[in-house]
Amino acid sequence: MDLPDLPEAEHQNVRFADGFVLDCGTTLPELTVAYRTYGTLDAARANAVLVCHALTGDQYVAEPSPVTGKEGWWTQVVGPGRPVDTDRYFVICANVLGGCMGSTGPRSLRPDGSRWGTDFPPVTIRDMVRAQKRLVEHLGIERLFAVIGGSMGGMQVLEWASTYPDALFAAVPIAAASHHSAQNIAFHEVGRQAIFADPEYHGGRYHEHGTIPARGLAVARMAAHITYLSEEALARKFGRRLQNGGLSIFGDMFQVESYLRHQGSTFVRRFDANSYLTITRAMDYFDLAADHGDDLAAAFAGTKARFCVVSFSSDWLFPTRESRALVRALNRAAANVSFVEIPTDKGHDAFLLDEPDFHRTLAGFLAGCAERAGIVR
Amino acid sequence: MDLPDLPEAEHQNVRFADGFVLDCGTTLPELTVAYRTYGTLDAARANAVLVCHALTGDQYVAEPSPVTGKEGWWTQVVGPGRPVDTDRYFVICANVLGGCMGSTGPRSLRPDGSRWGTDFPPVTIRDMVRAQKRLVEHLGIERLFAVIGGSMGGMQVLEWASTYPDALFAAVPIAAASHHSAQNIAFHEVGRQAIFADPEYHGGRYHEHGTIPARGLAVARMAAHITYLSEEALARKFGRRLQNGGLSIFGDMFQVESYLRHQGSTFVRRFDANSYLTITRAMDYFDLAADHGDDLAAAFAGTKARFCVVSFSSDWLFPTRESRALVRALNRAAANVSFVEIPTDKGHDAFLLDEPDFHRTLAGFLAGCAERAGIVR
Repeated sequence: MDLPDLPEAEHQNVRFADGFVLDCGTTLPELTVAYRTYGTLDAARANAVLVCHALTGDQYVAEPSPVTGKEGWWTQVVGPGRPVDTDRYFVICANVLGGCMGSTGPRSLRPDGSRWGTDFPPVTIRDMVRAQKRLVEHLGIERLFAVIGGSMGGMQVLEWASTYPDALFAAVPIAAASHHSAQNIAFHEVGRQAIFADPEYHGGRYHEHGTIPARGLAVARMAAHITYLSEEALARKFGRRLQNGGLSIFGDMFQVESYLRHQGSTFVRRFDANSYLTITRAMDYFDLAADHGDDLAAAFAGTKARFCVVSFSSDWLFPTRESRALVRALNRAAANVSFVEIPTDKGHDAFLLDEPDFHRTLAGFLAGCAERAGIVR
Repeated sequence: MDLPDLPEAEHQNVRFADGFVLDCGTTLPELTVAYRTYGTLDAARANAVLVCHALTGDQYVAEPSPVTGKEGWWTQVVGPGRPVDTDRYFVICANVLGGCMGSTGPRSLRPDGSRWGTDFPPVTIRDMVRAQKRLVEHLGIERLFAVIGGSMGGMQVLEWASTYPDALFAAVPIAAASHHSAQNIAFHEVGRQAIFADPEYHGGRYHEHGTIPARGLAVARMAAHITYLSEEALARKFGRRLQNGGLSIFGDMFQVESYLRHQGSTFVRRFDANSYLTITRAMDYFDLAADHGDDLAAAFAGTKARFCVVSFSSDWLFPTRESRALVRALNRAAANVSFVEIPTDKGHDAFLLDEPDFHRTLAGFLAGCAERAGIVR
């Protein structure tokens, strides 16, 4: 597949030119954070909600993406009258550090005008969160009302509560875990190897060759996508149905194959392979307990946030037992925590889908916290 | 990765030159079945056990493979004093039709001396079983004492019982199912796309280019390998341990990554990519109920075999519920069936590993059947 590079789009952003020191020790000469906001910041600057996006998400939470033209990825959750009600809250979402939607990442230009590409330094979930903190401060907000996110977004929520224990009133980690499991790492590694195997990857310098490793990235996306769904969801959506009807001898394609290929081929039109490598690596290395002497409770010592931990019953990528382990650690840290497992057959992706139980849970938790925080409607 | 083609090895075989009509309608001008036997056929020709291998298995059940030099893949199960006791039974194992260890498959030569390659016709699990039947008849055996196999081997066991209801006394489908699920198909499709994406695949004509699609095949193997293990097994074996100690900032590799890469790179030295495509397709299309008017019980109408259905508690590729569905269908068909779920954390691969409970179950079932069948020790 010979595809040109991703379209360059203008993204709203803020640029910090004073240098940004990463966990790896490298200093980025400048930090750009691309972001979107929805709603109005109240006079007390107390109603700000930070939404953290997942691996392949972006800042276009509640409006069409300028790259794909598709509607925002969380319009069912964020908007007027939605659980994260933009009539009530000021919602912020930033493209993560290392991403490819306008924030500093492998696609960004270095001071000498060349692209970072594979020279882009490794980043951590904490680096992503520290970049978001810069944005939040830039917006004049000292303390967020809430930080919310699913999957890798949930990892960021946990890191926020750990790194900035005073800077958020409420924390909602959804379909997340305190670390990436061996199986999760394994699936990411398959995707990375698929990208490396693509000759169009050119050792990461595909920009210089005017191409992208589209086939490898598509395979990576396909492998990952299976993990986002449950077996039940796949069986319900596709079963063993063939694309073109009639069981001929292998002439036809199963619907699930066609679906996966579509997932792969559309993904490469919107996502950068080096960003994919950078961000999957950040997720793999996320391990809050390891960062705190192998004591997860210590990661949350002193946090003042109220937690609502959410898991989905059929999520096998970030299973409920990981959320329970998180809740136990938060309890040991004497944090204020509630936990809800949403019964669903939709798998990990349930946090992005129509799940009324989840939406009611989120709306209720935020409303209760808003009352306690004295946020005026 | 620029690797030469697989080493050619001489495999014991039988050649049927009278043509072999496949389910797809194509006639193979000749059928070669490569096989190995262990033990001695008794005078009544009543003690033969056919072992069916899985996707990437071969006929070298209980002796070193001439290609890899590694010990047989089921030495814990097949051998003197083992559950499938070669002092008692005459054990046969054939490389499947479509395979790459000597049986007719994509690597085989056509009458004109060229390799089949991608022109090799699609084969079904039933075609594989019909090829085995030719071998069994060639060996002078009218009725097998038992047919045993795990994973795709289990699919063959079911097909044997369905297609030849009088030709086996006992059937042991292990970690199997009556059809491939949407999730299973999806994982296979990821592997196929990884192979197709490798430029060394050359549209399947890699033999002509003196190369093999090693990177693509390795990625396919890595993705598949994750599905053979349980999350618990991965966590126990590797957890989040790093290969070279000390948590540097992403300089180190997780052990699980190193392990997967090793799995991928050794696999391509012993397996043919076109065989992988052919056999995964055969598995995907396996659906015994669909072949019998969507009634799984009808598939087993008239079978005289005694069944022992075995599943493993942590197998998420062929989960226990699939075995239970099989047992229910066998019950509806008034078949003689017992069912055992082996508690283990080793996942799908448990059937290949040290699982004393499984081995005792198998030994006991066979011994009981041998007594009923009047097989003299």
